Amino acid sequence: MPERRVITGFSNPTVKFMRALRDKKHRRREQRFLAEGLRLLTDARECGKVPELLAMATNREPHPLLTALEDAVFAAGGDVVEMDEAVLGKVTGKDNPQAVAGVFAEFDTSLARLDQTAAPIWLVAQALRDPGNLGTMLRTCDAVGAGGLILLDDCTDPFSVEAVRASMGAVFTQRIATARWDEFIGWLRSGPGQLVAASLRDPTDYREAPYAPPCFLLIGNESQGLPAAYEAACDLRVRIPMLGRADSLNAAVAGAVLAYEALARIGRP
Amino acid sequence: MPERRVITGFSNPTVKFMRALRDKKHRRREQRFLAEGLRLLTDARECGKVPELLAMATNREPHPLLTALEDAVFAAGGDVVEMDEAVLGKVTGKDNPQAVAGVFAEFDTSLARLDQTAAPIWLVAQALRDPGNLGTMLRTCDAVGAGGLILLDDCTDPFSVEAVRASMGAVFTQRIATARWDEFIGWLRSGPGQLVAASLRDPTDYREAPYAPPCFLLIGNESQGLPAAYEAACDLRVRIPMLGRADSLNAAVAGAVLAYEALARIGRP
Repeated sequence: MPERRVITGFSNPTVKFMRALRDKKHRRREQRFLAEGLRLLTDARECGKVPELLAMATNREPHPLLTALEDAVFAAGGDVVEMDEAVLGKVTGKDNPQAVAGVFAEFDTSLARLDQTAAPIWLVAQALRDPGNLGTMLRTCDAVGAGGLILLDDCTDPFSVEAVRASMGAVFTQRIATARWDEFIGWLRSGPGQLVAASLRDPTDYREAPYAPPCFLLIGNESQGLPAAYEAACDLRVRIPMLGRADSLNAAVAGAVLAYEALARIGRP
Repeated sequence: MPERRVITGFSNPTVKFMRALRDKKHRRREQRFLAEGLRLLTDARECGKVPELLAMATNREPHPLLTALEDAVFAAGGDVVEMDEAVLGKVTGKDNPQAVAGVFAEFDTSLARLDQTAAPIWLVAQALRDPGNLGTMLRTCDAVGAGGLILLDDCTDPFSVEAVRASMGAVFTQRIATARWDEFIGWLRSGPGQLVAASLRDPTDYREAPYAPPCFLLIGNESQGLPAAYEAACDLRVRIPMLGRADSLNAAVAGAVLAYEALARIGRP
């Protein structure tokens, strides 16, 4: 069995490498991302995703899930490092001696790789800015048995620490693709697929609309909503009741309300 | 017409006072909270809530909504202050010369003040930790015409800058109450009210459940869920389908899925 490597200094290259993965530019260059917490890393392991590099505090208390994780990392030829709490805190940004962090290879996010008939429901987000919303959408995808999340135009990074955390592990189970609108619409129209958006302009109530699988639920940017041209390209525009002062829901909430409606109406995978 | 007061130094007491309102301890002591952004402050004004104190940058560009806001503050006997961008940045934590910030008196959050028959749907959150989730729930309350949001046990502060921002103005339209569980259940049982929770233990599908107004939708803590005793005290436990690996939704998402189902089934206010 390989041994843990012990790291002592803040200036150690592994520490610098891990810490830099909190920054999008470095993630892109390294094609790696960071996930933190024993629960999240265990979720990943149970989905067959094992970190290339696992870091923990030197004096961390033993835990059967941590042992299982360590075994899996070694079995996959990965690296396990120990560092003292202060150094680990530099990596995780947290003052928690129970913290563990793993480095994963980013997944392929090309749209061409997706089979649009693989699931009855998909979420599609356009210019989504908030990593918490992105992670929450991944979590909803998991819950409704969706095919995955397609990110259009300039969305926040699905591999940021915040998005990974908010996904509660769904980043490891869901397909994620990134694409420009033109690329997406070309891909969608090359096969079956109903494109649905929530709209204020259309009178069709979301509870009465004729959803059909595979159903792609399109959610717009948090402050601007969807561009009019995108809305016009949809097969179905549905109205979610807004009885108060505001004219929109939180983006992740809107996605979930539509996804659960579609699930109830067109059935399970 | 009163004049704007010009503030130049970082150590000015008004600057210190506003800045301290980012901290919960100071909010409690002062019974005041901060809301930022012209859109949010305009929403507040349109709901009849005018800040006692309005702050903006000295060289801020004129805007009709800002003029309307300033007029409303002066008409209510409030104070308008100008400060240079760097000083305003200390207050708002942002480097945005277009920023405006207002100080509001906190609202009464006693449960006794609420009439449970005032609306067909209410959201109730227990030990909610995330200010974004709290604000998003307020936004959902507004959208479904709910009576308001009742916060049980130790929830995150509804008057934090983050919660106020995520509410997109709903903090000014929705009733908000805070209570311990015993107090809440006593209040609820003193009148009509159906208490509903999402549960993994109950086989009643949330789409088939007999919702009845006034319907109180109870959402548990983000990581622990609801205490078993609270779930047992509910009149109705409903199951939201979870088809993937995870056994729960984001708290604000779960609240919205239930709230929209209840709205569709028991109708509008």
